[in-house]
Amino acid sequence: MSGGDTWLPSLITETPQEGFALAITLSQKGVATTQPDAEVRKAERPEYAEEADSLIAVSHVIATHFQTVAAANDYWRE
Amino acid sequence: MSGGDTWLPSLITETPQEGFALAITLSQKGVATTQPDAEVRKAERPEYAEEADSLIAVSHVIATHFQTVAAANDYWRE
Amino acid sequence: MSGGDTWLPSLITETPQEGFALAITLSQKGVATTQPDAEVRKAERPEYAEEADSLIAVSHVIATHFQTVAAANDYWRE
Amino acid sequence: MSGGDTWLPSLITETPQEGFALAITLSQKGVATTQPDAEVRKAERPEYAEEADSLIAVSHVIATHFQTVAAANDYWRE
Amino acid sequence: MSGGDTWLPSLITETPQEGFALAITLSQKGVATTQPDAEVRKAERPEYAEEADSLIAVSHVIATHFQTVAAANDYWRE
Amino acid sequence: MSGGDTWLPSLITETPQEGFALAITLSQKGVATTQPDAEVRKAERPEYAEEADSLIAVSHVIATHFQTVAAANDYWRE
Repeated sequence: MSGGDTWLPSLITETPQEGFALAITLSQKGVATTQPDAEVRKAERPEYAEEADSLIAVSHVIATHFQTVAAANDYWRE
Repeated sequence: MSGGDTWLPSLITETPQEGFALAITLSQKGVATTQPDAEVRKAERPEYAEEADSLIAVSHVIATHFQTVAAANDYWRE
Repeated sequence: MSGGDTWLPSLITETPQEGFALAITLSQKGVATTQPDAEVRKAERPEYAEEADSLIAVSHVIATHFQTVAAANDYWRE
Repeated sequence: MSGGDTWLPSLITETPQEGFALAITLSQKGVATTQPDAEVRKAERPEYAEEADSLIAVSHVIATHFQTVAAANDYWRE
Repeated sequence: MSGGDTWLPSLITETPQEGFALAITLSQKGVATTQPDAEVRKAERPEYAEEADSLIAVSHVIATHFQTVAAANDYWRE
Repeated sequence: MSGGDTWLPSLITETPQEGFALAITLSQKGVATTQPDAEVRKAERPEYAEEADSLIAVSHVIATHFQTVAAANDYWRE
Protein backbone atom coordinates (compact mmCIF):
# COMPACT_ATOMS: atom_id res chain seq x y z
CA MET A 1 0.00 0.00 0.00
CA SER A 2 1.89 3.04 -1.23
CA GLY A 3 0.98 6.01 0.98
CA GLY A 4 0.95 8.56 -1.80
CA ASP A 5 -2.11 7.54 -3.72
CA THR A 6 -4.07 5.71 -1.07
CA TRP A 7 -6.59 8.00 0.56
CA LEU A 8 -9.15 5.33 1.51
CA PRO A 9 -7.44 2.28 2.99
CA SER A 10 -10.49 1.23 5.02
CA LEU A 11 -14.01 2.17 6.07
CA ILE A 12 -13.35 1.03 9.63
CA THR A 13 -12.90 3.72 12.25
CA GLU A 14 -12.54 3.53 16.00
CA THR A 15 -15.38 5.83 16.93
CA PRO A 16 -18.61 7.16 15.37
CA GLN A 17 -17.08 10.61 15.31
CA GLU A 18 -14.12 9.44 13.26
CA GLY A 19 -16.66 7.75 11.01
CA PHE A 20 -18.43 11.05 10.54
CA ALA A 21 -15.13 12.69 9.63
CA LEU A 22 -14.57 9.96 7.05
CA ALA A 23 -18.04 10.62 5.60
CA ILE A 24 -17.04 14.26 5.14
CA THR A 25 -13.86 13.18 3.37
CA LEU A 26 -15.83 10.91 1.07
CA SER A 27 -18.28 13.66 0.16
CA GLN A 28 -15.44 16.07 -0.63
CA LYS A 29 -13.71 13.40 -2.71
CA GLY A 30 -16.85 13.04 -4.80
CA VAL A 31 -16.67 16.72 -5.64
CA ALA A 32 -12.93 16.68 -6.20
CA THR A 33 -13.24 13.90 -8.74
CA THR A 34 -15.61 15.86 -10.91
CA GLN A 35 -13.73 19.13 -10.57
CA PRO A 36 -10.10 18.11 -10.10
CA ASP A 37 -8.83 21.67 -10.25
CA ALA A 38 -8.32 22.68 -6.64
CA GLU A 39 -8.18 26.34 -7.59
CA VAL A 40 -11.66 26.26 -9.12
CA ARG A 41 -13.00 24.39 -6.09
CA LYS A 42 -11.45 26.94 -3.79
CA ALA A 43 -13.04 29.74 -5.81
CA GLU A 44 -16.46 28.13 -5.49
CA ARG A 45 -16.20 27.42 -1.83
CA PRO A 46 -16.90 30.87 -0.35
CA GLU A 47 -19.86 31.16 -2.68
CA TYR A 48 -21.65 27.96 -1.72
CA ALA A 49 -20.57 28.12 1.87
CA GLU A 50 -22.80 31.17 2.22
CA GLU A 51 -25.67 29.64 0.33
CA ALA A 52 -27.92 27.86 2.78
CA ASP A 53 -29.32 25.44 0.21
CA SER A 54 -25.86 24.36 -0.87
CA LEU A 55 -24.85 23.73 2.72
CA ILE A 56 -27.93 21.60 3.24
CA ALA A 57 -27.14 19.66 0.06
CA VAL A 58 -23.60 19.01 1.25
CA SER A 59 -25.00 17.86 4.56
CA HIS A 60 -27.22 15.39 2.68
CA VAL A 61 -24.25 13.88 0.86
CA ILE A 62 -22.41 13.51 4.16
CA ALA A 63 -25.50 11.78 5.62
CA THR A 64 -25.53 9.30 2.74
CA HIS A 65 -21.87 8.45 3.19
CA PHE A 66 -22.30 8.24 6.95
CA GLN A 67 -24.90 5.51 6.39
CA THR A 68 -22.27 3.49 4.57
CA VAL A 69 -19.51 4.08 7.08
CA ALA A 70 -21.80 3.37 10.03
CA ALA A 71 -22.96 0.08 8.49
CA ALA A 72 -19.35 -0.88 7.77
CA ASN A 73 -18.54 -0.42 11.44
CA ASP A 74 -21.67 -2.27 12.56
CA TYR A 75 -22.69 1.06 14.08
CA TRP A 76 -19.82 0.89 16.60
CA ARG A 77 -22.10 -1.23 18.79
CA GLU A 78 -19.09 -3.24 20.09
CA MET B 1 -12.58 10.28 26.01
CA SER B 2 -11.89 13.97 26.51
CA GLY B 3 -15.21 15.79 26.80
CA GLY B 4 -14.20 18.89 24.88
CA ASP B 5 -13.92 17.56 21.37
CA THR B 6 -16.18 14.55 21.51
CA TRP B 7 -19.63 15.38 20.24
CA LEU B 8 -20.55 11.90 18.96
CA PRO B 9 -19.55 9.23 21.47
CA SER B 10 -22.19 6.76 20.32
CA LEU B 11 -25.17 6.22 18.01
CA ILE B 12 -27.05 4.36 20.72
CA THR B 13 -29.92 6.18 22.40
CA GLU B 14 -32.48 5.04 24.90
CA THR B 15 -35.58 5.99 22.96
CA PRO B 16 -36.59 6.66 19.33
CA GLN B 17 -37.21 10.26 20.23
CA GLU B 18 -33.65 10.69 21.51
CA GLY B 19 -32.55 9.03 18.28
CA PHE B 20 -34.46 11.63 16.31
CA ALA B 21 -32.76 14.38 18.29
CA LEU B 22 -29.40 12.82 17.46
CA ALA B 23 -30.34 12.77 13.75
CA ILE B 24 -30.98 16.51 13.99
CA THR B 25 -27.59 17.03 15.61
CA LEU B 26 -25.90 15.03 12.85
CA SER B 27 -27.60 17.04 10.12
CA GLN B 28 -26.56 20.32 11.73
CA LYS B 29 -23.01 19.03 12.15
CA GLY B 30 -22.88 18.34 8.42
CA VAL B 31 -23.67 21.97 7.75
CA ALA B 32 -21.32 23.25 10.44
CA THR B 33 -18.40 21.36 8.93
CA THR B 34 -18.75 23.08 5.59
CA GLN B 35 -19.41 26.50 7.03
CA PRO B 36 -17.51 26.54 10.32
CA ASP B 37 -18.22 30.22 10.97
CA ALA B 38 -21.13 30.22 13.41
CA GLU B 39 -21.84 33.87 12.65
CA VAL B 40 -22.42 33.18 8.97
CA ARG B 41 -24.60 30.18 9.81
CA LYS B 42 -26.62 32.30 12.20
CA ALA B 43 -27.06 34.94 9.50
CA GLU B 44 -28.36 32.34 7.05
CA ARG B 45 -30.71 30.70 9.46
CA PRO B 46 -33.62 33.18 9.47
CA GLU B 47 -33.46 33.23 5.70
CA TYR B 48 -33.78 29.49 5.07
CA ALA B 49 -36.04 28.94 8.04
CA GLU B 50 -38.68 30.92 6.21
CA GLU B 51 -38.08 29.20 2.91
CA ALA B 52 -40.36 26.18 2.68
CA ASP B 53 -38.10 24.31 0.26
CA SER B 54 -35.08 24.71 2.51
CA LEU B 55 -37.03 23.42 5.48
CA ILE B 56 -38.10 20.38 3.49
CA ALA B 57 -34.50 19.79 2.41
CA VAL B 58 -33.32 19.94 6.03
CA SER B 59 -36.08 17.51 6.94
CA HIS B 60 -34.76 15.13 4.27
CA VAL B 61 -31.25 15.19 5.70
CA ILE B 62 -32.66 14.47 9.15
CA ALA B 63 -34.62 11.54 7.68
CA THR B 64 -31.44 10.11 6.17
CA HIS B 65 -29.56 10.33 9.46
CA PHE B 66 -32.54 8.93 11.33
CA GLN B 67 -32.31 5.81 9.16
CA THR B 68 -28.76 5.31 10.36
CA VAL B 69 -29.51 5.96 14.02
CA ALA B 70 -32.61 3.76 13.97
CA ALA B 71 -30.68 0.87 12.40
CA ALA B 72 -27.90 1.32 14.96
CA ASN B 73 -30.45 0.92 17.72
CA ASP B 74 -32.14 -2.04 16.03
CA TYR B 75 -35.17 0.22 15.81
CA TRP B 76 -35.54 0.23 19.60
CA ARG B 77 -37.47 -3.03 19.25
CA GLU B 78 -36.11 -4.39 22.56
CA MET C 1 -42.44 8.32 30.21
CA SER C 2 -44.05 11.68 30.76
CA GLY C 3 -46.83 12.12 28.19
CA GLY C 4 -46.28 15.82 27.59
CA ASP C 5 -43.01 15.78 25.75
CA THR C 6 -43.03 12.32 24.27
CA TRP C 7 -44.19 12.37 20.65
CA LEU C 8 -42.25 9.30 19.48
CA PRO C 9 -42.54 6.46 21.98
CA SER C 10 -41.99 3.74 19.38
CA LEU C 11 -41.53 3.01 15.68
CA ILE C 12 -43.77 -0.04 15.91
CA THR C 13 -47.24 0.25 14.43
CA GLU C 14 -49.97 -2.31 13.92
CA THR C 15 -50.46 -1.83 10.21
CA PRO C 16 -48.51 -0.48 7.22
CA GLN C 17 -51.00 2.34 6.95
CA GLU C 18 -50.33 3.45 10.52
CA GLY C 19 -46.64 3.21 9.66
CA PHE C 20 -47.18 5.56 6.74
CA ALA C 21 -48.97 7.99 9.03
CA LEU C 22 -45.99 7.85 11.38
CA ALA C 23 -43.65 8.59 8.46
CA ILE C 24 -45.68 11.72 7.76
CA THR C 25 -45.40 12.76 11.40
CA LEU C 26 -41.64 12.26 11.31
CA SER C 27 -41.27 14.35 8.17
CA GLN C 28 -43.31 17.18 9.69
CA LYS C 29 -41.28 16.98 12.89
CA GLY C 30 -38.11 17.47 10.87
CA VAL C 31 -39.50 20.72 9.53
CA ALA C 32 -40.88 21.81 12.88
CA THR C 33 -37.48 21.44 14.51
CA THR C 34 -35.83 23.82 12.12
CA GLN C 35 -38.67 26.32 12.13
CA PRO C 36 -40.20 26.00 15.59
CA ASP C 37 -42.54 28.94 15.10
CA ALA C 38 -45.88 27.36 14.18
CA GLU C 39 -47.17 30.68 12.86
CA VAL C 40 -44.39 30.93 10.29
CA ARG C 41 -44.90 27.30 9.26
CA LYS C 42 -48.61 27.91 8.86
CA ALA C 43 -47.87 30.94 6.70
CA GLU C 44 -45.62 28.89 4.44
CA ARG C 45 -47.98 25.99 4.10
CA PRO C 46 -50.48 27.35 1.55
CA GLU C 47 -47.56 28.51 -0.54
CA TYR C 48 -45.71 25.22 -0.85
CA ALA C 49 -48.89 23.14 -0.86
CA GLU C 50 -49.65 24.67 -4.25
CA GLU C 51 -46.14 24.25 -5.54
CA ALA C 52 -45.88 20.87 -7.24
CA ASP C 53 -42.13 20.57 -6.69
CA SER C 54 -42.46 21.22 -2.97
CA LEU C 55 -45.17 18.58 -2.68
CA ILE C 56 -42.94 16.08 -4.46
CA ALA C 57 -40.06 16.95 -2.14
CA VAL C 58 -42.26 16.41 0.92
CA SER C 59 -43.35 13.09 -0.56
CA HIS C 60 -39.67 12.12 -0.86
CA VAL C 61 -39.00 12.84 2.80
CA ILE C 62 -42.04 10.75 3.74
CA ALA C 63 -40.70 7.92 1.57
CA THR C 64 -37.36 8.03 3.36
CA HIS C 65 -38.99 7.86 6.78
CA PHE C 66 -41.34 5.13 5.61
CA GLN C 67 -38.28 3.00 4.78
CA THR C 68 -37.19 3.29 8.39
CA VAL C 69 -40.61 2.60 9.87
CA ALA C 70 -41.23 -0.34 7.53
CA ALA C 71 -37.87 -1.91 8.42
CA ALA C 72 -38.59 -1.39 12.12
CA ASN C 73 -41.81 -3.35 11.71
CA ASP C 74 -40.16 -6.05 9.61
CA TYR C 75 -42.47 -4.88 6.83
CA TRP C 76 -45.56 -6.11 8.68
CA ARG C 77 -44.93 -9.43 6.92
CA GLU C 78 -46.85 -12.17 8.63
CA MET D 1 -60.38 -3.99 8.63
CA SER D 2 -63.01 -1.59 7.31
CA GLY D 3 -62.60 -1.25 3.56
CA GLY D 4 -63.43 2.43 3.39
CA ASP D 5 -60.39 3.94 5.00
CA THR D 6 -57.83 1.23 4.41
CA TRP D 7 -55.73 1.97 1.39
CA LEU D 8 -52.57 0.13 2.52
CA PRO D 9 -53.43 -3.26 3.99
CA SER D 10 -50.07 -4.80 3.15
CA LEU D 11 -46.73 -4.25 1.42
CA ILE D 12 -46.78 -7.76 -0.01
CA THR D 13 -47.54 -8.13 -3.69
CA GLU D 14 -47.49 -11.14 -5.97
CA THR D 15 -45.12 -9.79 -8.59
CA PRO D 16 -42.42 -7.11 -8.88
CA GLN D 17 -44.65 -5.23 -11.28
CA GLU D 18 -47.47 -5.05 -8.75
CA GLY D 19 -44.88 -3.90 -6.27
CA PHE D 20 -43.89 -1.09 -8.60
CA ALA D 21 -47.54 -0.08 -8.90
CA LEU D 22 -47.74 0.01 -5.12
CA ALA D 23 -44.65 2.24 -5.01
CA ILE D 24 -46.45 4.67 -7.32
CA THR D 25 -49.49 4.65 -5.05
CA LEU D 26 -47.30 5.36 -2.04
CA SER D 27 -45.61 8.29 -3.75
CA GLN D 28 -48.95 9.79 -4.74
CA LYS D 29 -50.26 9.30 -1.23
CA GLY D 30 -47.33 11.30 0.11
CA VAL D 31 -48.37 14.21 -2.07
CA ALA D 32 -52.06 13.81 -1.31
CA THR D 33 -51.41 14.04 2.41
CA THR D 34 -49.74 17.41 2.13
CA GLN D 35 -52.24 18.80 -0.35
CA PRO D 36 -55.49 17.02 0.45
CA ASP D 37 -57.51 19.12 -1.97
CA ALA D 38 -57.86 16.92 -5.07
CA GLU D 39 -58.88 19.93 -7.16
CA VAL D 40 -55.64 21.75 -6.44
CA ARG D 41 -53.63 18.60 -7.14
CA LYS D 42 -55.45 18.13 -10.42
CA ALA D 43 -54.70 21.73 -11.36
CA GLU D 44 -51.00 21.22 -10.69
CA ARG D 45 -50.75 17.95 -12.53
CA PRO D 46 -50.64 19.16 -16.17
CA GLU D 47 -48.07 21.72 -15.13
CA TYR D 48 -45.54 19.38 -13.54
CA ALA D 49 -46.28 16.54 -15.95
CA GLU D 50 -44.72 18.67 -18.67
CA GLU D 51 -41.80 19.75 -16.55
CA ALA D 52 -38.98 17.26 -17.06
CA ASP D 53 -37.36 17.99 -13.69
CA SER D 54 -40.62 17.38 -11.84
CA LEU D 55 -41.11 14.08 -13.61
CA ILE D 56 -37.61 13.01 -12.66
CA ALA D 57 -38.28 14.02 -9.05
CA VAL D 58 -41.47 11.96 -8.98
CA SER D 59 -39.54 9.05 -10.43
CA HIS D 60 -37.04 9.38 -7.56
CA VAL D 61 -39.78 9.16 -4.95
CA ILE D 62 -41.16 6.07 -6.65
CA ALA D 63 -37.67 4.55 -6.62
CA THR D 64 -37.38 5.15 -2.89
CA HIS D 65 -40.72 3.51 -2.17
CA PHE D 66 -39.89 0.65 -4.53
CA GLN D 67 -36.83 -0.10 -2.36
CA THR D 68 -39.14 -0.55 0.60
CA VAL D 69 -41.71 -2.66 -1.22
CA ALA D 70 -39.04 -4.83 -2.85
CA ALA D 71 -37.35 -5.48 0.50
CA ALA D 72 -40.73 -6.32 2.06
CA ASN D 73 -41.25 -8.95 -0.61
CA ASP D 74 -37.71 -10.28 -0.27
CA TYR D 75 -37.27 -9.11 -3.85
CA TRP D 76 -39.78 -11.70 -5.10
CA ARG D 77 -36.89 -14.19 -5.16
CA GLU D 78 -39.18 -17.12 -4.21
CA MET E 1 -48.00 -14.34 -17.57
CA SER E 2 -49.32 -12.52 -20.61
CA GLY E 3 -46.39 -10.96 -22.46
CA GLY E 4 -48.22 -7.79 -23.47
CA ASP E 5 -48.59 -6.08 -20.15
CA THR E 6 -45.74 -7.59 -18.21
CA TRP E 7 -42.70 -5.39 -18.32
CA LEU E 8 -41.19 -6.42 -14.96
CA PRO E 9 -41.35 -10.20 -14.51
CA SER E 10 -38.36 -10.33 -12.17
CA LEU E 11 -35.59 -8.31 -10.54
CA ILE E 12 -33.10 -11.08 -11.11
CA THR E 13 -30.52 -10.59 -13.85
CA GLU E 14 -27.55 -12.62 -14.89
CA THR E 15 -24.92 -9.92 -14.63
CA PRO E 16 -24.43 -6.58 -12.86
CA GLN E 17 -24.51 -4.87 -16.21
CA GLU E 18 -27.94 -6.29 -17.03
CA GLY E 19 -28.99 -5.18 -13.56
CA PHE E 20 -27.87 -1.65 -14.38
CA ALA E 21 -29.91 -1.76 -17.59
CA LEU E 22 -32.92 -2.83 -15.54
CA ALA E 23 -32.36 0.10 -13.18
CA ILE E 24 -32.51 2.43 -16.18
CA THR E 25 -35.77 0.81 -17.30
CA LEU E 26 -37.24 1.26 -13.83
CA SER E 27 -36.28 4.93 -13.71
CA GLN E 28 -37.86 5.55 -17.11
CA LYS E 29 -40.98 3.69 -16.08
CA GLY E 30 -41.32 6.01 -13.10
CA VAL E 31 -41.39 8.97 -15.46
CA ALA E 32 -43.69 7.25 -17.96
CA THR E 33 -46.25 6.58 -15.28
CA THR E 34 -46.59 10.22 -14.39
CA GLN E 35 -46.55 11.44 -17.97
CA PRO E 36 -48.08 8.60 -19.98
CA ASP E 37 -48.11 10.58 -23.21
CA ALA E 38 -45.05 9.38 -25.13
CA GLU E 39 -45.20 12.39 -27.41
CA VAL E 40 -44.86 14.84 -24.53
CA ARG E 41 -42.01 12.80 -23.06
CA LYS E 42 -40.26 12.76 -26.40
CA ALA E 43 -40.67 16.53 -26.65
CA GLU E 44 -39.08 17.01 -23.23
CA ARG E 45 -36.22 14.67 -23.82
CA PRO E 46 -33.91 16.85 -25.96
CA GLU E 47 -34.46 19.66 -23.49
CA TYR E 48 -33.42 17.85 -20.33
CA ALA E 49 -30.80 15.75 -22.09
CA GLU E 50 -28.84 18.94 -22.61
CA GLU E 51 -29.39 20.21 -19.12
CA ALA E 52 -26.56 18.95 -16.93
CA ASP E 53 -28.59 19.12 -13.72
CA SER E 54 -31.40 17.04 -15.20
CA LEU E 55 -28.94 14.41 -16.35
CA ILE E 56 -27.44 14.23 -12.89
CA ALA E 57 -30.93 13.90 -11.40
CA VAL E 58 -31.74 11.03 -13.76
CA SER E 59 -28.46 9.41 -12.80
CA HIS E 60 -29.51 9.65 -9.14
CA VAL E 61 -32.78 7.85 -9.79
CA ILE E 62 -30.92 5.11 -11.65
CA ALA E 63 -28.54 4.80 -8.68
CA THR E 64 -31.47 4.36 -6.31
CA HIS E 65 -33.03 1.63 -8.45
CA PHE E 66 -29.64 -0.02 -8.91
CA GLN E 67 -29.42 -0.39 -5.12
CA THR E 68 -32.65 -2.36 -5.20
CA VAL E 69 -31.70 -4.54 -8.16
CA ALA E 70 -28.22 -5.22 -6.78
CA ALA E 71 -29.64 -6.28 -3.41
CA ALA E 72 -32.19 -8.52 -5.15
CA ASN E 73 -29.33 -10.29 -6.91
CA ASP E 74 -27.25 -10.51 -3.75
CA TYR E 75 -24.80 -8.27 -5.58
CA TRP E 76 -24.06 -11.04 -8.10
CA ARG E 77 -21.53 -12.39 -5.62
CA GLU E 78 -22.21 -15.97 -6.81
CA MET F 1 -17.74 -12.26 -21.83
CA SER F 2 -16.88 -10.18 -24.86
CA GLY F 3 -14.60 -7.35 -23.74
CA GLY F 4 -16.05 -4.71 -26.02
CA ASP F 5 -19.46 -4.25 -24.51
CA THR F 6 -18.85 -5.33 -20.96
CA TRP F 7 -18.11 -2.37 -18.75
CA LEU F 8 -19.47 -3.81 -15.48
CA PRO F 9 -18.34 -7.41 -15.02
CA SER F 10 -18.56 -7.29 -11.23
CA LEU F 11 -19.22 -5.08 -8.21
CA ILE F 12 -16.37 -6.69 -6.30
CA THR F 13 -13.21 -4.66 -5.86
CA GLU F 14 -10.07 -5.30 -3.91
CA THR F 15 -10.05 -2.11 -1.87
CA PRO F 16 -12.52 0.55 -0.72
CA GLN F 17 -10.74 3.05 -2.90
CA GLU F 18 -11.27 0.95 -6.01
CA GLY F 19 -14.88 0.64 -4.92
CA PHE F 20 -15.14 4.42 -4.81
CA ALA F 21 -13.70 4.62 -8.31
CA LEU F 22 -16.34 2.13 -9.46
CA ALA F 23 -19.05 4.28 -7.87
CA ILE F 24 -17.82 7.21 -9.94
CA THR F 25 -17.95 5.08 -13.09
CA LEU F 26 -21.51 4.03 -12.28
CA SER F 27 -22.62 7.62 -11.75
CA GLN F 28 -21.10 8.69 -15.06
CA LYS F 29 -22.71 5.74 -16.81
CA GLY F 30 -26.09 6.89 -15.55
CA VAL F 31 -25.55 10.22 -17.24
CA ALA F 32 -24.12 8.70 -20.40
CA THR F 33 -27.19 6.52 -20.86
CA THR F 34 -29.52 9.46 -20.91
CA GLN F 35 -27.30 11.63 -23.08
CA PRO F 36 -25.36 9.16 -25.24
CA ASP F 37 -23.75 11.88 -27.33
CA ALA F 38 -20.27 12.28 -25.88
CA GLU F 39 -19.85 15.63 -27.60
CA VAL F 40 -22.88 17.12 -25.84
CA ARG F 41 -21.71 15.72 -22.51
CA LYS F 42 -18.28 17.19 -23.06
CA ALA F 43 -19.85 20.55 -23.85
CA GLU F 44 -21.84 20.48 -20.62
CA ARG F 45 -18.96 19.41 -18.45
CA PRO F 46 -17.07 22.70 -18.04
CA GLU F 47 -20.36 24.37 -17.26
CA TYR F 48 -21.47 22.13 -14.42
CA ALA F 49 -17.96 21.52 -13.19
CA GLU F 50 -17.87 25.18 -12.18
CA GLU F 51 -21.33 25.14 -10.69
CA ALA F 52 -21.02 24.23 -7.02
CA ASP F 53 -24.56 22.84 -6.78
CA SER F 54 -24.01 20.52 -9.74
CA LEU F 55 -20.80 19.22 -8.21
CA ILE F 56 -22.60 18.52 -4.96
CA ALA F 57 -25.37 16.71 -6.85
CA VAL F 58 -22.80 14.55 -8.64
CA SER F 59 -21.19 13.81 -5.30
CA HIS F 60 -24.60 12.66 -4.02
CA VAL F 61 -25.03 10.21 -6.89
CA ILE F 62 -21.55 8.83 -6.24
CA ALA F 63 -22.46 8.42 -2.56
CA THR F 64 -25.57 6.43 -3.50
CA HIS F 65 -23.60 4.09 -5.75
CA PHE F 66 -20.85 3.77 -3.17
CA GLN F 67 -23.46 2.41 -0.73
CA THR F 68 -24.22 -0.35 -3.21
CA VAL F 69 -20.60 -1.17 -4.00
CA ALA F 70 -19.61 -1.12 -0.34
CA ALA F 71 -22.45 -3.49 0.58
CA ALA F 72 -21.49 -5.79 -2.30
CA ASN F 73 -17.99 -6.03 -0.87
CA ASP F 74 -19.23 -6.50 2.67
CA TYR F 75 -17.51 -3.19 3.38
CA TRP F 76 -14.09 -4.75 2.74
CA ARG F 77 -14.14 -5.93 6.35
CA GLU F 78 -12.21 -9.13 5.45
